[in-house]
Amino acid sequence: MQKTVCDVLIIGGGPAGSVCAMTAKMNFPDKEVLVVREQELQMVPCAIPYIFSQTLGSVENNLVSCAPAQKFGISTMIGKVESVDTDKKIAYMDEYEIFFDKLVFATGSKPFVHPTLRESLNLKGVFTVPKNVPYIREMKEYTDTKNRVVVVGTGFIGIEMAMEFAENGKEVTLVGRSRHILKGSFDSEVAAMAEEIIKSANINYIGGEGVDKILENNGVVCGIKLQSGAIIDTDIVVLATGFKANTDLAEKANMKFGHYGGIWVDEYMRTENRDIFAVGDCAMRRHFITKQQSKVMLASTSSAEGRVAGSSLYGVKYLKHFSGTIAIFSTVIGDMAFASAGITCEEAKEGHADVVVGAFEGMNRHPAAIPDAQKQYVKLVAMRNGGQIIGGQIVGGQEAGEMINLIGAMIESGMTIYQAMTMQVATQPKLTAAPTMYPLTIAATMIAQEISKGCTLQ
Amino acid sequence: MQKTVCDVLIIGGGPAGSVCAMTAKMNFPDKEVLVVREQELQMVPCAIPYIFSQTLGSVENNLVSCAPAQKFGISTMIGKVESVDTDKKIAYMDEYEIFFDKLVFATGSKPFVHPTLRESLNLKGVFTVPKNVPYIREMKEYTDTKNRVVVVGTGFIGIEMAMEFAENGKEVTLVGRSRHILKGSFDSEVAAMAEEIIKSANINYIGGEGVDKILENNGVVCGIKLQSGAIIDTDIVVLATGFKANTDLAEKANMKFGHYGGIWVDEYMRTENRDIFAVGDCAMRRHFITKQQSKVMLASTSSAEGRVAGSSLYGVKYLKHFSGTIAIFSTVIGDMAFASAGITCEEAKEGHADVVVGAFEGMNRHPAAIPDAQKQYVKLVAMRNGGQIIGGQIVGGQEAGEMINLIGAMIESGMTIYQAMTMQVATQPKLTAAPTMYPLTIAATMIAQEISKGCTLQ
Repeated sequence: MQKTVCDVLIIGGGPAGSVCAMTAKMNFPDKEVLVVREQELQMVPCAIPYIFSQTLGSVENNLVSCAPAQKFGISTMIGKVESVDTDKKIAYMDEYEIFFDKLVFATGSKPFVHPTLRESLNLKGVFTVPKNVPYIREMKEYTDTKNRVVVVGTGFIGIEMAMEFAENGKEVTLVGRSRHILKGSFDSEVAAMAEEIIKSANINYIGGEGVDKILENNGVVCGIKLQSGAIIDTDIVVLATGFKANTDLAEKANMKFGHYGGIWVDEYMRTENRDIFAVGDCAMRRHFITKQQSKVMLASTSSAEGRVAGSSLYGVKYLKHFSGTIAIFSTVIGDMAFASAGITCEEAKEGHADVVVGAFEGMNRHPAAIPDAQKQYVKLVAMRNGGQIIGGQIVGGQEAGEMINLIGAMIESGMTIYQAMTMQVATQPKLTAAPTMYPLTIAATMIAQEISKGCTLQ
Repeated sequence: MQKTVCDVLIIGGGPAGSVCAMTAKMNFPDKEVLVVREQELQMVPCAIPYIFSQTLGSVENNLVSCAPAQKFGISTMIGKVESVDTDKKIAYMDEYEIFFDKLVFATGSKPFVHPTLRESLNLKGVFTVPKNVPYIREMKEYTDTKNRVVVVGTGFIGIEMAMEFAENGKEVTLVGRSRHILKGSFDSEVAAMAEEIIKSANINYIGGEGVDKILENNGVVCGIKLQSGAIIDTDIVVLATGFKANTDLAEKANMKFGHYGGIWVDEYMRTENRDIFAVGDCAMRRHFITKQQSKVMLASTSSAEGRVAGSSLYGVKYLKHFSGTIAIFSTVIGDMAFASAGITCEEAKEGHADVVVGAFEGMNRHPAAIPDAQKQYVKLVAMRNGGQIIGGQIVGGQEAGEMINLIGAMIESGMTIYQAMTMQVATQPKLTAAPTMYPLTIAATMIAQEISKGCTLQ
């Protein structure tokens, strides 16, 4: 056994682990930070779907460079940590004993497949979407030779996979159990806009339907049977039915867990043991309003957690200002961007909060004759009492990607619609809506109007 | 004399006036709101430069629709108000006497030309850039027949005019008195990036030089003489040397004025007379840090003022949460967007504030193989004590247009770099930087590092 010593050991090199390592090194430059990860090569997780179209076209175009870690003076080892002794502070890996002072679990997540479909994973042509370079490379090679695809699952990975396969000329069916796609991120009327685009891309979209069975022929997939009894012939099935926390190692180490299987952490990403942290998809998350546990899994949330943990390893250096995940998210469907943050109106009505909604549809450029002008729809959700903005949904051009971050900052900073109404924004013909028709301020004004109706005697 | 009666009279129909009218109607639906404006047809002010290239190509493509005003139930009259009797509450226009209860000056601004050059305005081929449809139409027709242009002034209108003329194949010289373009919005190193793009568009850029004289030949411009003595031959001179408040009417009405000529107003856009308001470029503005008067003129700022006034006409309905203009601004130069909010580092060092700066350059997509990936540079300026974000500059793709609004919201909500460090942002390969390399959080972290150096004994 060889011995290795470090101050901070981070197990996992995805977004959470790598941001945690960088942040730790920036905050505590004298500490030795070691990242151990299983794969030599790593991909950008959210860009995996683009490998299957001309957008990226290959796994090679989606590889993450190791240069930043080297630049920051972070050490890296490739291998699988088999077990951790949290009392002795030793991690065991092949022929290595790694002695640490602080440990961060950043072991990520793995695809979730419903128990009734799990044995079909052995069939040729049935895939999940793991963050695994050799697997995705093989999947790419196989799918390139086939024409018909069924994608199961209408979360963002399912939709992106379906759209990229379709763009690449395949015959695609998309099946989802929910009545509408992207449930939880968008209200029904917004999801319906996305469904129109999906259908116009020649995707056979089947909502509100579960998969009963995956059909085979000599160990090769040949179709799926829906719960309604309908059968769809196919060469490929992609199960994009969610992810679950990857906590094998933490379980062996007897860590405490949250409801959905994530490692229990406080808001500084500390476990019950003050020398052990967990970040990213393997850690427990809280909803920013209910403060209850949440199943949200996003690389951006993971990165934020990595930053919190990285600066809190040796005590609380910076006070955490915001509690819980706001589930902030964006994607591109066809030539429109869809983005969401906080809670939807439907979620709120299911019991979380007494809310008022304002929505405005305009153009993302001004005047409308600007060549790339597109429709821009913005919806805000605010507390009836107090007017704090707690949710937003955007459909628009590429600008939606940063506009949702503006809504995210509003939510995190407790901004009210009263502030948003007169907020100063930059507007420019080629970049934004008109100053007179800026959708966020109009949506905020609509909410203020609605609230004040209940406050006056008129 | 015909008599007309309204509750709220708004003089001027630009962004400030029209937003004020809409907001007034939304807040006080029972009040009769009348907008009087001089021009039958109106343009989007910020899009005027795009008339001179293929982007819009004509004045017609830049006209503003009157539909929103009609939809909101706002009345409109075309004509010039000659005088106002603020005691009797009557405005005089041609054959009309307009009786009002509340009056809003929204008379905008007009081009400023240095006294030594003013008489050259009579020459054929010498233009300013007023928000005037017949003038711009004539200017478009004239410039279309000529090849050589000198644009004087390196504010955003000057730069946009120069770039659009160049795109349209003209031989363009751009002359500015400041050493760098866009002074006040960008620090020198950011301005230098823009200057590189301007030069690579074959524009002859001459910085740090004033114009001594405009040269003529039989009443037609033929060149300019710089203060250095150099002479540049040209067919057209465009003087984009700033704007000044248009306050002729307010002067006749004996209103009180601020330092730079704007009508004196409090933070609710009220003049000393509680029934009279002023909004937009004709009104006085304050700097958000020094609270001293500011010369900033932007349609977006004007719109925000219109919203404040529109809801405050009959008493303070909504508490104003933020005081002063943050000068938030964006533009496109070549294929890059440049955006700025708050104060620059150079401004701060000139005496406003003790600040720390963080800057990060990455890519606006991830991985970098995404086809439209571009460089993205973000710089933040924060208070050393307290860490409040008070300025930001962005160079990037089109997303910079909304990303600067995120920085604006951070400034307005008093967000600190400590909050920004762990802010939750949405990231998506086709829309944003990587979650691990999101430039705002990295710039904020750099500032926190710098501040904490001064706070510890290490």
